[in-house]
Amino acid sequence: MESEKKAVQDFYPEDVAHCFGCGRLNPEGHRLKTVWEGDDTVSRVKPHRYHTAIPGYVYGGLIASLLDCHGTGGAAAAMLRREGRDIGDGEAPRFVTASLQVDFLKPTPLGPELEVRGRIVEITDRKVVLEETLSAGGAVTARGRVVTVRMPEAMVAATRP
Amino acid sequence: MESEKKAVQDFYPEDVAHCFGCGRLNPEGHRLKTVWEGDDTVSRVKPHRYHTAIPGYVYGGLIASLLDCHGTGGAAAAMLRREGRDIGDGEAPRFVTASLQVDFLKPTPLGPELEVRGRIVEITDRKVVLEETLSAGGAVTARGRVVTVRMPEAMVAATRP
Repeated sequence: MESEKKAVQDFYPEDVAHCFGCGRLNPEGHRLKTVWEGDDTVSRVKPHRYHTAIPGYVYGGLIASLLDCHGTGGAAAAMLRREGRDIGDGEAPRFVTASLQVDFLKPTPLGPELEVRGRIVEITDRKVVLEETLSAGGAVTARGRVVTVRMPEAMVAATRP
Repeated sequence: MESEKKAVQDFYPEDVAHCFGCGRLNPEGHRLKTVWEGDDTVSRVKPHRYHTAIPGYVYGGLIASLLDCHGTGGAAAAMLRREGRDIGDGEAPRFVTASLQVDFLKPTPLGPELEVRGRIVEITDRKVVLEETLSAGGAVTARGRVVTVRMPEAMVAATRP
């Protein structure tokens, strides 16, 4: 059933779907996919072998990136839900990160799929705040807090021909 | 003269020099290089075109990664200096990130070389804290605060045959 869930990134407008972290149109990127599981937003990623820190562990920059990208995806999902819409009911709104806090609790083993799980802790018309965990093989190895804001319309418009 | 400065990452022990962010032995990675400029630690990186967010701007995960990696490199340089050594006087110590705070002040244009500049704000035998800016074309677009700790000897030893 998991694989049938709709990911919010699949409904970003085509002209703002190239982000290295979450854009479905960026073949070199992570192409993060975020779905609802109850009231949690969840993304899962399998790191590449070259995403190493010291041998055997995941490079911290990838962890920070995934927490960041999950934040904007989770914010989009949360805004849809707030508007009474489910993922897939029209285009998803785009958010950008205002601030990111990462606490690296322990080394993250390189090998297992990584799971990022978020909770919405604050939401207004233009701002969404999430608290997140990142886990590997069921053990939480990092925590994040992401403040996101709705992408300014001028930024979106600037990408249009 | 800049190009003659020694980068701290070039003196990491060979068995812990594979990090995607800063390892000279990771051909797929960023291979960040950190040098002293007076009391500032400085790293410069030219993003790839695929490091895009929405078109025209740098993906935030790269910014977070560079601030993170610059933190561990800057910490290594600072610890050497504290011990009365310059970069290149023997092996450089390895640090890991305990926490990372990033404030995205404005969109970072994709194109110019990015400069990360750090200041050491706290240093003890095992911990170094840095405050950082990231700028593009001379304009500061993000700020970071990184708490790093000396890599536990057990982690280093575990990488040795």
